[in-house]
This record gives sequence, structure tokens and C-alpha cells, in this order.
Amino acid sequence: MSAEALLKELRSQLPADCLLTEREQIAPFECDALPVYCSRPVAVVLARAEAHVVAVATACHRHRVPLVTRGAGTGLSAGAKPIESGVLLVTAAMNRILELDRDAMTARVEPGAVNLQVSRAAAPLGLYYAPDPSSQIACSIGGNVAENAGGVHCLKYGVTVQNVSALRVVTSEGEVLTIGGQCLAQPGYDLLALMHGSEGCLGIITEVTVKLTPLPATTRTLMADFACVRAASDAVSAIVRAGVIPAALEMMDALAISATEAFCHAGYALDAAAILIIDLDGDPREVDVELKLVEEVLGSSGATRVQLAADETQRALWWKGRKSAFPAIGRLSPDYYCIDGTVPRHRIGDVLEAIQSFAVNYDLQVANVFHAGDGNLHPIIMFDGSEPDALDRVEQLAADILEYCIAVGGSITGEHGVGLEKINQMAVQFTDAEIAQFMAIKEALDSLGLLNPDKQIPELARCQEYRALRRSHE
Amino acid sequence: MSAEALLKELRSQLPADCLLTEREQIAPFECDALPVYCSRPVAVVLARAEAHVVAVATACHRHRVPLVTRGAGTGLSAGAKPIESGVLLVTAAMNRILELDRDAMTARVEPGAVNLQVSRAAAPLGLYYAPDPSSQIACSIGGNVAENAGGVHCLKYGVTVQNVSALRVVTSEGEVLTIGGQCLAQPGYDLLALMHGSEGCLGIITEVTVKLTPLPATTRTLMADFACVRAASDAVSAIVRAGVIPAALEMMDALAISATEAFCHAGYALDAAAILIIDLDGDPREVDVELKLVEEVLGSSGATRVQLAADETQRALWWKGRKSAFPAIGRLSPDYYCIDGTVPRHRIGDVLEAIQSFAVNYDLQVANVFHAGDGNLHPIIMFDGSEPDALDRVEQLAADILEYCIAVGGSITGEHGVGLEKINQMAVQFTDAEIAQFMAIKEALDSLGLLNPDKQIPELARCQEYRALRRSHE
Repeated sequence: MSAEALLKELRSQLPADCLLTEREQIAPFECDALPVYCSRPVAVVLARAEAHVVAVATACHRHRVPLVTRGAGTGLSAGAKPIESGVLLVTAAMNRILELDRDAMTARVEPGAVNLQVSRAAAPLGLYYAPDPSSQIACSIGGNVAENAGGVHCLKYGVTVQNVSALRVVTSEGEVLTIGGQCLAQPGYDLLALMHGSEGCLGIITEVTVKLTPLPATTRTLMADFACVRAASDAVSAIVRAGVIPAALEMMDALAISATEAFCHAGYALDAAAILIIDLDGDPREVDVELKLVEEVLGSSGATRVQLAADETQRALWWKGRKSAFPAIGRLSPDYYCIDGTVPRHRIGDVLEAIQSFAVNYDLQVANVFHAGDGNLHPIIMFDGSEPDALDRVEQLAADILEYCIAVGGSITGEHGVGLEKINQMAVQFTDAEIAQFMAIKEALDSLGLLNPDKQIPELARCQEYRALRRSHE
Repeated sequence: MSAEALLKELRSQLPADCLLTEREQIAPFECDALPVYCSRPVAVVLARAEAHVVAVATACHRHRVPLVTRGAGTGLSAGAKPIESGVLLVTAAMNRILELDRDAMTARVEPGAVNLQVSRAAAPLGLYYAPDPSSQIACSIGGNVAENAGGVHCLKYGVTVQNVSALRVVTSEGEVLTIGGQCLAQPGYDLLALMHGSEGCLGIITEVTVKLTPLPATTRTLMADFACVRAASDAVSAIVRAGVIPAALEMMDALAISATEAFCHAGYALDAAAILIIDLDGDPREVDVELKLVEEVLGSSGATRVQLAADETQRALWWKGRKSAFPAIGRLSPDYYCIDGTVPRHRIGDVLEAIQSFAVNYDLQVANVFHAGDGNLHPIIMFDGSEPDALDRVEQLAADILEYCIAVGGSITGEHGVGLEKINQMAVQFTDAEIAQFMAIKEALDSLGLLNPDKQIPELARCQEYRALRRSHE
């Protein structure tokens, strides 16, 4: 590759203000929301149209230059960290809502459209976009697809892949593909699912058609207190087994409760070992029935107290607490690190116990606030980064937790992706034969390996090295 | 390849009664449920264990022999038609239910396990397997995965891919992979989705872990009559927009009604232009609320009569009619041919009108009985195969209907797959660049092209030829 030849081609193809090459212009783009990983690319392109994306992909392919794409940069696994020898393509400015279709209940949007902006635009039609990652006021739909993002609503309404019907994608060679359609079933191989969670490694998303969901006529909220974490965990399974799918089913443990309560006085029980916050939505008469059903299950699951939010104000306060939990925990500790793993719902109790026993080994504390209905854990490791070995201990504890998730049949990511952060754990979750299949797919769709290289799928040699290292620690 | 060398290796690896090479032994396996396509393979292997599958894949790979896999052979698109120069691997005898897990709400089964058998085995745990293709008393779970099968329950509970959490798969080279896990989200590329609907072209399924759904406490059934097809079609969209997801939402047109009523006296209105049959399931109190909601929507959508099944006997009779519609229509016509396409739900009215106008062009009649909630149509073309040009006219009408489905944003298959039957229509639904992506995936996972060759993905030359042919007819 020659950086100069590439830049010359990009200058001839793009509006001048789309192409950033000066150090101070590039600085804001050197990392995503996991800033421990950062680097400075050769150039940043702020695309405003699909034609710009095609021009960048074509030029990078011709000059054999790596290409990393990012949306809003809210990712937590360094999936959008630039490559020093490469171009960083930013799609955040491609943020138009192109079409809202009331009859088809879909929205066609550019990849930079912000998650919450889509729901706001659809609200006058009585519709919204259901998946709601906690970054929803900032994160973009293109990034949501790349990470297959989840959120509070995903137990009932599915993660991103269940809420997208079509994509336009630019290939590594600069060709434009239409993938998916307006119907659930499509012939041929499921390229639509394949693009979800592919972290920018298989193609560049330039348009997303999302499915919209009817705004529920009402939402009611229950809060249940438990004297032990395992009883709360078992109640989560019991609710789903009773045939009710809540719109949200969240759990907080004692440390998360006390941090949050001190911060925003949500009205949580300070003597509870765990609380569940449960949203039920739909027609008011239907929600009334579901409330009774869930109250019955909670009663027989050992809840020490079950409260129904009296009004919208109390509901909002309970949720404000849940949503403030991360900054609240941040106040108790100089630093914190949030992990993301999933486990089968009925193993939540085992995993929470294991997390506490691992934490003791490293002299660290862990708070838990998470999407219990999905089994999607977010252990928050509290630490003091000024202690010289703190980051090492945190990293080892995180690895222990993620690898325990794998051991009980779970996985190393619920919604944050692999990126660079979890690339070692891929070697634990998958065999070499399985990693080789991922590589074959990558090579099929990006034969020169230019799209977001070195992310998500580890080299086989690295896998073997990491497995040997972990064995030596056992 | 040398057939003799291959057979020698297979004889050394397999129990003698697994390997069929005599003409009369092979005859029953020459076609699937679309017998217009048939051929005799070199050998049929009746596998009883994964080790047999590995042996066959390894031998075929070594000797460069094509390998077609089939389950129960109930497929309707010739996806399991053998290759004359190849081996046919039958997994129907691998039909054990290996594990039922009440807590995880899953069943681990061999690929030959029959769909309904899984639900029967799970019933004592209060669970069942939701996807229910109309062949469910005979079709196998492995085939359901290969075709990404649907069914009456799929509007509410999803198609096969939403109801499978893990697979064991033998690759073209004979390696065993584990794909997926117990959690919704998995890191890496979505190989689990990729295997669904891949029609045996990417790997051989040797074990399936299906998700189980709680058996509903009650199911109630509504039947609504309409004086015009479009009003019935619009009511389908209105119900979903109202936020209710029925367990089943089926539609029959006048021809289907009269054929069925004559055959089994289900109590359908002979003067209706269309009827909807709607199941609502769940907790009895919740179902009561949903019944009221749906009745309101039906009332304001122009239903001329809405009935609630008085008891289980009446419910069963209405469903018996729906399920007998195909043989009932068969009695009115010497032959019939069932098509499978999907359209966006709000375009059902347009498509049903178009079908009738196309049918006139070819002097044929079409009855419609279908999964309206999913927009999954099953037009049934009635014809007399003894007329010399009948099959040609049927084939052209089917092509017109499928290509109209594409034109309104739909697709050429809901649940029957592409196989050989619809390979031409792939050229209409996809561009060359999109077909090339499918081919790249195929080559990545089956580099020698041995698994079910010539099915599902057409050669580019064939695509161009078919498109030119269709243009010349316009």
C-alpha cells in the first residue's frame, strides 16, 4: 500500500470536508467507548452518502488498505478502534430517516440514525423501535446491527436481528448489496443474520430497514424484593415458565441497590439481597391479568415484598434508579469495569454466587445490575486504577467470570461484542475447527482481509497460546 | 471418483444393513414429496449414529462424490432429490430424543426425530415444540432446520430458526462442529442462522437442541366471515397493529371454503368470500381479554359474522376443516399443485387479486388456504394433468405468482425452500452480486461443492438465461 496514493484517490472522490487527515482532526476518533485501546489512522472519512462509502471501500480495496467503520463510537469492546495503517470510515453523519411505512410497520434509515431518534420519528404513527441498548440516546442503528445490540426490551421483542428486515451493504470490493426484504423468510443463505454481530468485518452497512412495534396502550411496573439472590434468580425462570413474557425483567443485587439508592433515592429496599423490576405492557385489561399472574409467581417464589408502581411518577423513579446504577456504582469506587456475558436463565443463581467467590480471590468487589430475563449479565468490577496491579486483577477476574459463563452453557457476550476486548475468550468458547469456519466465512466475504482486521476472530496460533496460558494457571 | 472405491470404503466403515446398493432397495428414496424430480443414487446410507454420518462425509470427500442428505423426505421443493453419481444419506433412523431439560426448557434430539414426537415427549413437562409444519406427524427436525420450516404457530412463536438454540453439524470434510449454545446471543458469525434454510448445502445436521414453549393453559378459537377478500386481508393487518399476536391466524377463500365444506362439514359459511380462523392462547383470563380485542377489530374491519367456538369439539371441527383443505381441493380437480410464497402482510389483498387475474390468463383455477398472519401464501393451482399443455400452464402461472410476490416486496418461499423447484426464481429475487455472495458462502463451507450440489443457488449463467427468457415473454 501507499498512503499517499490512497489519499490522492480519496481527495479526488470525496468532498473536501469529508476527509480528515490532520492530527488534531483525527484525535477524537482514535478510540470508541473502551479507550484503553486506541490508535491514530491514516485518515478519517466522514461519509454523508452511500456513494462516499463505495468510494472509500473501492479505494481501500485497490490500494490494499485496512478499513475500519464506526457509527457513534459508543461500543464497549473496542470494535471500532482504528488501525494505524488504515482508514477510519465514520457513518454517523448518514443519519437520515428515509421512510416511515405505517402499513408495513417499518422504517428505512441510514446507518448513522440514532436509535432513540427512530422511535421518536415513529411515535406519531403509534409505533416504536423496540431494541433499546442503554446507550440508545447516542448509539446508531448501524452500530446496533454490527454488534447485534440488545437492551431492556429484548426479552419480549428480541435483539436487533429479530427487528431488522433488510440491509444495504457495501462489500469490501465496493459493491452494493440488498440483503433481506419485507418478509420473515428469505430464500438462500441467511446473509441478514450473518451481518448482525459481524462487527464491521464482513461489509459496511449503508441502510437499515427496521421493524416497528405498536406502542403499548399501557405499561405497568412491579418491584419485588428478595432476601436471597438465588430466590430472585429462580423467580426469573418461574415467570417465563408461567408463560408470561414481561416487556422488561431486570435484576439488581444488594451492592447495586445501595449504590443506586444513595445516589437517586429511587425507593429501593436497602435490606433486600436482590430486587427485580418488571414491566408488563399491552392492552390495559391484558396487563391487569398479567400483573396478577406475575404477582402469584413472585409470591410463591419467596419474594418478601411485591409493589406495583402507583403511578407514572413512581414507575419513572424506579427506572431512573435502574438506569443510574452504573454512574451510582462509579461514585463508590475510583474506577469500574463493566462486563457482558450471557448464561442460561436457570443458571443465573449459580453464576452470581460464583462471581462473588471469584471476586474474593482478587480482593475486588462486583456489583450486578442486569437483564435477568435474557440471562444477560453485566457484572461491574469496582477497582482503584492507581493501584499498580489493579488492572491485571480486573482483567483476570473478568476472564474468570466470562469463562465460567461458557462453562455453564452461556456465552462471552450478550450485546457488547467481541472486538479486541474479548478476543482471547473466543479461544475458550470455540474449538479450532469452529474458529476455522468463522475464518472461512470472513475470507469468503472479504478475501483480502481489509475490513476491521484483527477484531472478533482470533488467529489459531493465538487461540492455542491463550488456552495453554489458562491451563498453566489452573 | 470411482464408485467402486467409495463403496468399498463405505462397506468397511458401516454396518452392513446401513448400506443399500440394490435397485429395489434404493427405489423408495429416489424422490422426496415433489416426485416430478427423481433419480437413482449410487448408494443409500441409512445412518443410525453420528459416526456413520462422519464416515459417509469423509468417504465422499476423499472420493469426490456428491452427497445429498434427507430426513423424512416430506420436502416439497425437491431439495432431497438424490444425485445419480452420488450417495443419499438418510438420517430418519437417527430419531432418538436424547435429553429433555425442564429447567433450560430445551430438548436435545437427533435429526430424524419427528416434529410431533418431540412435542409429545415434552408434554409431561408442560412444554411443547412450537413450529408445526402441516407435515408435522411425519417430518423430521433435521429437515425442519434445513428448510427453516414454519407452520400455523409461527406468527406468535417464530419459525424454526427462532426455536433452535444449538446444532451439531458434520462438515463436508467430515469434521464435527458445535454451533450455537443455550443463550440467544453468541459471539462470532451467526453460523446457527446460516445453517437454517441451507437445504443440506453447507453441512449435515446430526443433533438439534430445540427450545420448548410452555403449553398454554387454554386456547380459544374465533372464526370471522367476510363478504370480500380484501376486507379479510386488511383485518389481518389490523389485528397485528392492535398489538395482539394470535397463536394462529389463517385465511381461506371461497373456493377453499366450498371444497372443504363439501368434504368435511366443518360449519364454514358457504356464502363468505373469505374466512379467518384465529387461535388465541395463554392464561384463560388473558385470552378472554384478547378475544374481546380481536372481536372489536374484526367488527370494525367489516366482518359479516364473528363466532367463538363453543367448545373443544367445535374448535377441533373448524381446525379439521382447515387441515383437510388440501385433500378437499384435491377432490375437485384431477391434480393440484401447491405454491409457497410470502408477501408483506398489508399486501395480501393485492396479491390475492393478482393471483385470480393471472389464473384467468392460463384458464386455471386457484384456491387459497394460508398462514395470513405471516403473509405466507399457499395458492393451490387446480389442473388436469391429462391435458397435454396443463403442466406448462401451471408452471407459468406459478412463476407469475412467485414473481409477483417478489415485486410487492415478498419472497419466493415461506417454508418449502428453493430446492430444484424454484431455482429459476432465485434469478428474479437476487442480483448477480447477491447470488455471488451465496456462492462464496457455499465455497467457504464446502469447497469441493459436494453437499447437495445444483440445489438452491443457481449458476450465474442460468440466472442470466432465465432473466432473458422472462423479459422475452413480457
